[in-house]
Amino acid sequence: MTARPANAHQARLLALLRDAGPHSRAQLGDQVELSRSKLAVEVERLLDTGLVVADGLAASRGGRRSHNVRLSPGLRFLGVDIGATSIDVAVTNAELEILGHLTQVMEVREGPVAVFEQVLAMAAELRDAGLADGFDGAGIGVPGPVRFPEGVPVAPPIMPGWDGFPVREALSQELGCPVMVDNDVNLMAMGEQHAGVARTVADFLCVKIGTGIGCGIVVGGNVHRGTTGSAGDIGHIQAVPDGRPCACGNRGCLEAHFGGAALARDAEEAARQGRSPELAARLAAHGGLTAADVAAGAAAGDATCLDLIREGGTRTGQVIAGLVSFFNPGLVVIGGGVTGLGHTLLAAVRTQVYRQSLPLATGNLPIVLGELGPIAGVTGAARLISDHVFSPA
Amino acid sequence: MTARPANAHQARLLALLRDAGPHSRAQLGDQVELSRSKLAVEVERLLDTGLVVADGLAASRGGRRSHNVRLSPGLRFLGVDIGATSIDVAVTNAELEILGHLTQVMEVREGPVAVFEQVLAMAAELRDAGLADGFDGAGIGVPGPVRFPEGVPVAPPIMPGWDGFPVREALSQELGCPVMVDNDVNLMAMGEQHAGVARTVADFLCVKIGTGIGCGIVVGGNVHRGTTGSAGDIGHIQAVPDGRPCACGNRGCLEAHFGGAALARDAEEAARQGRSPELAARLAAHGGLTAADVAAGAAAGDATCLDLIREGGTRTGQVIAGLVSFFNPGLVVIGGGVTGLGHTLLAAVRTQVYRQSLPLATGNLPIVLGELGPIAGVTGAARLISDHVFSPA
Repeated sequence: MTARPANAHQARLLALLRDAGPHSRAQLGDQVELSRSKLAVEVERLLDTGLVVADGLAASRGGRRSHNVRLSPGLRFLGVDIGATSIDVAVTNAELEILGHLTQVMEVREGPVAVFEQVLAMAAELRDAGLADGFDGAGIGVPGPVRFPEGVPVAPPIMPGWDGFPVREALSQELGCPVMVDNDVNLMAMGEQHAGVARTVADFLCVKIGTGIGCGIVVGGNVHRGTTGSAGDIGHIQAVPDGRPCACGNRGCLEAHFGGAALARDAEEAARQGRSPELAARLAAHGGLTAADVAAGAAAGDATCLDLIREGGTRTGQVIAGLVSFFNPGLVVIGGGVTGLGHTLLAAVRTQVYRQSLPLATGNLPIVLGELGPIAGVTGAARLISDHVFSPA
Repeated sequence: MTARPANAHQARLLALLRDAGPHSRAQLGDQVELSRSKLAVEVERLLDTGLVVADGLAASRGGRRSHNVRLSPGLRFLGVDIGATSIDVAVTNAELEILGHLTQVMEVREGPVAVFEQVLAMAAELRDAGLADGFDGAGIGVPGPVRFPEGVPVAPPIMPGWDGFPVREALSQELGCPVMVDNDVNLMAMGEQHAGVARTVADFLCVKIGTGIGCGIVVGGNVHRGTTGSAGDIGHIQAVPDGRPCACGNRGCLEAHFGGAALARDAEEAARQGRSPELAARLAAHGGLTAADVAAGAAAGDATCLDLIREGGTRTGQVIAGLVSFFNPGLVVIGGGVTGLGHTLLAAVRTQVYRQSLPLATGNLPIVLGELGPIAGVTGAARLISDHVFSPA
């Protein structure tokens, strides 16, 4: 374990080195408002912490050649993204480049003990592959609201057994490093912000369509988590008045009408009712259907599959349209497993938002698919813990 | 005109003196992280600017008695709140206490030239009453989206003739002082935050129900204005699928179903259809109806008036319910002229939000009427310009 920076100047320098790689001291001086001597002092102190190392001489800019510095090449972060039905674990270096990534199918409802056993096994596998000796920090995403300061899930509807489980504390003890815990959707947003499609946008929404549907909200570059950590829980916004009954006790919630779980149900019903030969064949072969079957059916030109995706996109678009009028974002990112549905889904969402939101809010509003796919969450997780490790203790 | 502070420390001291009144130097030292000598330097510099004056000796705290300082008693801010059908103008001192306040019925659609003639006449009246010699800054609210950095209304649907009018520049020239322009709903939120019901809340929503319906969004203590200045424009969120046609071209917008304008239409229709003797009598007497007539009818126990208010509150609550799930605020404030409808409206909004939003988001969520009534906007306007004048140039 390395030390933490001592002040905000050092934190800023670490973030610069993380986000833009090695710098000469002269380049660092161009980017921070510090006198030459003060900068030299702060860089020396960072070298003493071991977070930063000297990296040879920089190319000459005319005068005396400046020394390069970079983040320690031995630093390792662990990014963990626990979804409703899968676990992703990745190791990154200090610049948050992914050095190794494992995926495992697993139901979050198996509970925290079983899930973390799996997470630790995957982390050990990455370590044993020579990608890390140990970890300098770990970020963990879970598919439900989190009391962020304590790193504890609260009242997570799809996560029985997780309510109040001390995720941060338990994993920090097991891994022997600092741990931060957040909602999986917030981490997807941070991932797309760090290395994906939202790199240059201060205010944006990141809608994750997986088993359920959630939304990461970024305001002025920071994730907005809300008063009780449930901000962005848009799956239970009413999409259809007096619509389908939802597990939450209301009717017509977005998640009751769309998302991986709803889509699987609708697909099985369509197969049984003989409305889709494509889905019927897949149901007969596998005994069950998922969003991936609908995506495959749509790719094969099955009209029912295309209708299911379009209708779901329209429902999602109706909800996003209201959020766009309310929040006036600079970008809307659509991500999550169901983005395998691709451009048919995106087109339906766009049509609805551009039709229904105010023109002033949509005039220059891009609505795009995420760029990072399955690594968005683990990238965001690494970003979260690096923000913590690179901030003053 | 006085000078502006030179740095963030001075700005912080000015905000302290504004929000908590006169302080001894010792008290200031308790509240800012400055060494004794550095604090003394910054206070001296503020005294030099004329923004701050010495104010006698403070009570002893055991040692040598400390000198009091306060904001200059001669500082004056002008707060202007232009609504769809009215203009409010107030003069405040540096602590944003309202020294005088005038209201005038006027339609914003008469255009910026006529409206500002009226505003300047009202400002002159307050000056002539001896409340101010001149103004050190003016804050202006307008009932539509504003390109905030430039202080220019953009595409304001209910403000023909205002699109692109250089409000900030024009008024700054007329008044001879700095001017800041914002959406009226944002100013109501800032008013309730400064001196009203939201004083201690970092993240809240302030829903203004006037002629139209808008929402001020405060995140981490700051107003969120959105990418094009249209954040909070919730009047055109769909409340009723395939509902009434709206002036914006869509159907079922919240404003098509509720707000001062919709309520007046509904009340006149009820009167003509013989569904409300109370409203029929008022229509016969005045030739037209407003939200105030519905409020009076409801107070007299008229069932139709009560139904109109309850139905409108339910529609509004449906939209707010989605925003609460999305934003997870710590408080929802309901304000604006239509709050004359009072607790019947509030009860309907609350019922809907508590029924429809996620329990985690509403568990500790107060939904309350604003405290400041007609002075919320002018207070927020004074706050806006004081933030500007009290920040480094």
